[in-house]
Amino acid sequence: MTEDNAILVGNKPFMNYITAIVMQFATKNASEVVVKARGNLINSAVDASMVASKRFLEGKVKVKNVVINSEEVTNREGKKRNISSIEITLEKV
Amino acid sequence: MTEDNAILVGNKPFMNYITAIVMQFATKNASEVVVKARGNLINSAVDASMVASKRFLEGKVKVKNVVINSEEVTNREGKKRNISSIEITLEKV
Repeated sequence: MTEDNAILVGNKPFMNYITAIVMQFATKNASEVVVKARGNLINSAVDASMVASKRFLEGKVKVKNVVINSEEVTNREGKKRNISSIEITLEKV
Repeated sequence: MTEDNAILVGNKPFMNYITAIVMQFATKNASEVVVKARGNLINSAVDASMVASKRFLEGKVKVKNVVINSEEVTNREGKKRNISSIEITLEKV
């Protein structure tokens, strides 16, 4: 699997990420796609993964693995804080 | 494992959930604790699990398993919609 199959969920419209997941499987023929997010966007990564796997790619794609973690980041004021992250691996059934 | 070891993350102050996790392991001697949340509270469940396992119970507790899902719920207006959920199982090292 290459890094091309990783999708980082950000602040774009929600549907963009679902489309990106579906496109990776449908047109790029990926066997796995990793959906990543940090902080408040963790919800969106879970939502996008669920909508893609249960609605758009129902019966074709399922959740293989979910990993949560936290990492120390330095904000613009120079303060260090921990931010949680998630990596959801979806795979072809 | 009994259902006593499940913690549902809601809208209470964040620290309550961390305390609940730590208490289950430290005073109730649980071998596993399941942290659950739905919708927008998924972030908080991940944050609470990370703070509990990496700061308060560092080296003593780790993430065993993470499951994401979605379920159909009916809101107050009688409309059906899908809501994502997460279940994070923490275990004693």
